[in-house]
Amino acid sequence: MKKTEKTEGCVQTSVSRRNFLKGGAVIGASAAVVPVVGGLSMLGSTSTQASSGKGSVAPGELDDYYGFWSSGQAGEIRIIGVPSMRELSRIPVFNRCSATGWGQTNESLKILTEGLTEKSKKMLKKRGVKSWDNGDLHHPHMSFTDGTYDGRYIFANDKLNSRVARIRCDIMKTDKIIEIPNAADIHGLRPQKYPRTGYVFANGEHRVPLPNDGSILDEPEKYHAIFTGIDGDTMKIEWQVIVDGNLDNNDADYQGLYAFSTSYNSEEGVTLAEMTSGEQDHVVVFDIKAIEKGVKNGDYKIMNGVKVLDGRKGSKYTRYIPISKSPHGINTAPDKKHVVINGKLSPTVSVMDVRKLPDLFKDNIKPRDVIVAEPKLGLGPLHTSFDNRGNAYTTLFLDSQACKWNIKKAIRQYNGENVNPIIHKIDTAYQPGHNHTSMGETVNADGKWLVSLNKFSKDRFINVGPLKPENDQLIDISGPKMKLVHDGPTFAEPHDCIMVDTSIVNPSNIYKRDDPMFADAVAQAKKDGVKLEGDSKIIRDGNKVRVYMWSVAPTYSMNKFTVNEGDEVTIYVTNLDKVDDLTHGFAMGKYGIAMEVAAQATSSVTFIADDPGVHWWYCQWFCHALHMEMRGRMLVKPA
Amino acid sequence: MKKTEKTEGCVQTSVSRRNFLKGGAVIGASAAVVPVVGGLSMLGSTSTQASSGKGSVAPGELDDYYGFWSSGQAGEIRIIGVPSMRELSRIPVFNRCSATGWGQTNESLKILTEGLTEKSKKMLKKRGVKSWDNGDLHHPHMSFTDGTYDGRYIFANDKLNSRVARIRCDIMKTDKIIEIPNAADIHGLRPQKYPRTGYVFANGEHRVPLPNDGSILDEPEKYHAIFTGIDGDTMKIEWQVIVDGNLDNNDADYQGLYAFSTSYNSEEGVTLAEMTSGEQDHVVVFDIKAIEKGVKNGDYKIMNGVKVLDGRKGSKYTRYIPISKSPHGINTAPDKKHVVINGKLSPTVSVMDVRKLPDLFKDNIKPRDVIVAEPKLGLGPLHTSFDNRGNAYTTLFLDSQACKWNIKKAIRQYNGENVNPIIHKIDTAYQPGHNHTSMGETVNADGKWLVSLNKFSKDRFINVGPLKPENDQLIDISGPKMKLVHDGPTFAEPHDCIMVDTSIVNPSNIYKRDDPMFADAVAQAKKDGVKLEGDSKIIRDGNKVRVYMWSVAPTYSMNKFTVNEGDEVTIYVTNLDKVDDLTHGFAMGKYGIAMEVAAQATSSVTFIADDPGVHWWYCQWFCHALHMEMRGRMLVKPA
Repeated sequence: MKKTEKTEGCVQTSVSRRNFLKGGAVIGASAAVVPVVGGLSMLGSTSTQASSGKGSVAPGELDDYYGFWSSGQAGEIRIIGVPSMRELSRIPVFNRCSATGWGQTNESLKILTEGLTEKSKKMLKKRGVKSWDNGDLHHPHMSFTDGTYDGRYIFANDKLNSRVARIRCDIMKTDKIIEIPNAADIHGLRPQKYPRTGYVFANGEHRVPLPNDGSILDEPEKYHAIFTGIDGDTMKIEWQVIVDGNLDNNDADYQGLYAFSTSYNSEEGVTLAEMTSGEQDHVVVFDIKAIEKGVKNGDYKIMNGVKVLDGRKGSKYTRYIPISKSPHGINTAPDKKHVVINGKLSPTVSVMDVRKLPDLFKDNIKPRDVIVAEPKLGLGPLHTSFDNRGNAYTTLFLDSQACKWNIKKAIRQYNGENVNPIIHKIDTAYQPGHNHTSMGETVNADGKWLVSLNKFSKDRFINVGPLKPENDQLIDISGPKMKLVHDGPTFAEPHDCIMVDTSIVNPSNIYKRDDPMFADAVAQAKKDGVKLEGDSKIIRDGNKVRVYMWSVAPTYSMNKFTVNEGDEVTIYVTNLDKVDDLTHGFAMGKYGIAMEVAAQATSSVTFIADDPGVHWWYCQWFCHALHMEMRGRMLVKPA
Repeated sequence: MKKTEKTEGCVQTSVSRRNFLKGGAVIGASAAVVPVVGGLSMLGSTSTQASSGKGSVAPGELDDYYGFWSSGQAGEIRIIGVPSMRELSRIPVFNRCSATGWGQTNESLKILTEGLTEKSKKMLKKRGVKSWDNGDLHHPHMSFTDGTYDGRYIFANDKLNSRVARIRCDIMKTDKIIEIPNAADIHGLRPQKYPRTGYVFANGEHRVPLPNDGSILDEPEKYHAIFTGIDGDTMKIEWQVIVDGNLDNNDADYQGLYAFSTSYNSEEGVTLAEMTSGEQDHVVVFDIKAIEKGVKNGDYKIMNGVKVLDGRKGSKYTRYIPISKSPHGINTAPDKKHVVINGKLSPTVSVMDVRKLPDLFKDNIKPRDVIVAEPKLGLGPLHTSFDNRGNAYTTLFLDSQACKWNIKKAIRQYNGENVNPIIHKIDTAYQPGHNHTSMGETVNADGKWLVSLNKFSKDRFINVGPLKPENDQLIDISGPKMKLVHDGPTFAEPHDCIMVDTSIVNPSNIYKRDDPMFADAVAQAKKDGVKLEGDSKIIRDGNKVRVYMWSVAPTYSMNKFTVNEGDEVTIYVTNLDKVDDLTHGFAMGKYGIAMEVAAQATSSVTFIADDPGVHWWYCQWFCHALHMEMRGRMLVKPA
């Protein structure tokens, strides 16, 4: 193995790393005024440590955690085994997936479209496309019961097209996607922790006119950002709250009373210079019970079919806590009391005590009175995770470090004691954004692993061209000092992740025949008098042709079928294999059709038979020694 | 770490593994006659061995090989570091990529469409889509010079939509995609090894009518398969050859004289029973010089613009060598003499001596006289790789094993000596398809690593639902016995891979401004009098609006621009950052626009401004501490 230090052309020292960021800012200044982000301090610790071997899992051994990783602009969710950091699967969500047919099958298109606003449905129809083919998935979080993960769902946002998706953890497939009206560019997303999820809280990041129909254009003072409460069980929007500033990340308490969002751009500017001119922004605290009462009392306007409450400054539904400066991540500690707000452009994190929030809403105390600590950790604090021993781990973007610190010590320091809350820092490679500890956003934080999701990898891997991987680093936090054990390259661009103990997640191996995923196919077959689990039939209904076939390795139940040019053909394939891991496919050239048909599932696709001739379909999911021979012919008679 | 044996619900012993395959075949028999694939033998060796630690790479250390991995029906190419088996990047090829905008940017759409047949261009236009969104990418292989990799290109096939793609290894992006007319479902693909690439040889797997326009439908006797010679430098089709049977995999010699394809279904059937009824199929050997002479002499028909020669049995361009049974993989050894043909439904591999081929074409010897060894290795031999010590490594699909054997010993056995060519077998988990050794398809085979691409993982990883990962296992072959060191889960579905010494591949870190990738943007800017590297301009041309902006972290050169509802808008973004790893993006909600803009590159996207209102665009590739603030507004005035 070659050492990093020997790589030519991409050697990257601590100094040049620092200059890299500075350089960006300096060049950026030619386009806009860029604020100085505090004084530069010396890098705290030495270079990365060699692996202890714990960051790999030997053949025949299994991982201890399901990692659910976002993929940012790749639009999917990845299942990563921890501590091996191996990608175990990809779950298509907002992206178009060539392998599974996500975005092409009737089953996936229903999920991708039924939750869109009427406006978007019309717009996409006018464009002649069935759905958006992309998304920007930042924050995957599991449903909670009693303050800990319950293994039911993963929820995730799409910043690009303002959507929220839900993934079923029994089959590891997306089952609901809804568009959030009124809000623009959904960013922060977290589920209610207690008593259960319950709500999924979603931040609309960008401020836009309400309604955004062109009647208001370049009048930023009339723009608004929106906070949304979604029912995680039904995926219906329960209410929205108009706020001041741009909403960034969010979290919820362990009492089921409050949600909180960081908010930057309290200046409500539309340029970088305007957005970063002030020294303080805020955290918006939402009083869930008050909002529910407001909804009950009719204190809302209906906008695009949603009940929208006014939560701007002075509202009874919200409180605005001043925080320095452009705060980014917000993370509730497993002690159920403390919430850490990460300063981004301030070297501090602010610790809020949720027990003080009732008094704040009663105006018995001032907003800043809820802050009980504000340790200075280093440059660019973005996100914080927790262990089960009262410690917090904060990413320092500009310092390219992970900082371990103690919450109680930080409170003592804030109260005037001469105590240093910082326990240990290690370098990360490079520029960490989110981080996450194993089970760390639940009451069952276990203090074993920390993942640092680094935005740049630069010299850490062999050069793969202009587009470098990110670097997800696995850090052992079981001892007093953090220890780096694995560098994990990733394609664009994990923003966030969670690590869930394997005991909590219990996926199926094969589908149940009454799974709602293919209920429409079951209903149509019933109408057509076809038994999906055994009949091979072609139903002609005018120029609509429904072809029902099933598969058992290595054959389909049909060798051929014939249609006429111009027919609208729907093909239903039911995989009758009951063996674990025996997925079939259905792929047909020139029609560009390719879909996954999992064991005991039905999948379907609809197309116009516009290309006369012989078209082979084949199984593209390897299934059997005679997999290559598993195929048939569609014969399209010319018109 | 938990041991495999302790996993509940998915324990998988050697016996049940075997039953799994048997079970599939037995159930399959209900739909078609399934042949018995030889007698079952006992599994050869013990369970997998624990890691030696060599299958992981410590933080700060670099991989020794670029692995270029196909992704099957996922349609992309993956760059995997070896021996760490970490995914370093994904190269979108036939798939739609949410992260990079592949399939959406003007630059990628040009590559995806300009090489299609006129018929397909018309068909896609009629469908109102710009390109197919998927593919089935099986075989990635690097360009050769003098029998070894030269670091220029990767070539790969698309079985689904009958295409061949080329990837530039300097920027690790696809730069050419061509559709292969006349042929159906391109499968086997290999580059010419000597003197250079030169030709890329591509197998049309399925037999279809010629022309396939509906005038011939259910008359399989009139169907044909086609072998194609593509010029790898120009990506133009030089010639095609009609053959008998279905073409499967292929390879080329080290002399620059011959190419060879395995061919199954010599029965020319259209059902599984028909396809597998005979005991022998064949390898087709193509005489390249004779074909070139035939082209020169006009011995071809023009079909869909391509020169098509007749290479069916009896042709001077081909020879058909009988091989048992449904042979699959074909692999030329680095000794430059021997070619191994893998029997699939026969427990044998057949070794062909290329030095005998001139005599075969002169009819001095019979086809079977070119076979110099035929060792019986086990059940389901699919593919063979080589070390630099005269040994071969064959995947046994049904036995779920890798078999190490010696070529010289196999020849001696074939000649009557009582010698066992088999050196060692190890279990793989489970059902291996392709395998590959480091540098193993070149004269520089180095005998260090073997990767076994296993089609099923079953119990090797924590359960991720009905859709399990494949399992790419890394095996140390440097010693006398093979040693498993790493289990690598993969999403659908690596068919093939190559491992290239890092010294051969030298990618760029940033783009050159004269890169052909964005030459159209440069040309349009020149026409519009715009300097991409510094001007910010809006050019209105009727209802066509061209917006030219540039980016330097953390800003775009424009904060806003205004267009009218109904305008056709093209946005050009030029990334002026010159720092390694500083990719920007351009993403805009509701329009579903998201593209990558690498350092010093220009990217563009065209859309109709059909949604009035305020639309924020933002940078979705993390670039800077103020990345979130890097955005601007498109204001669309209502009509």
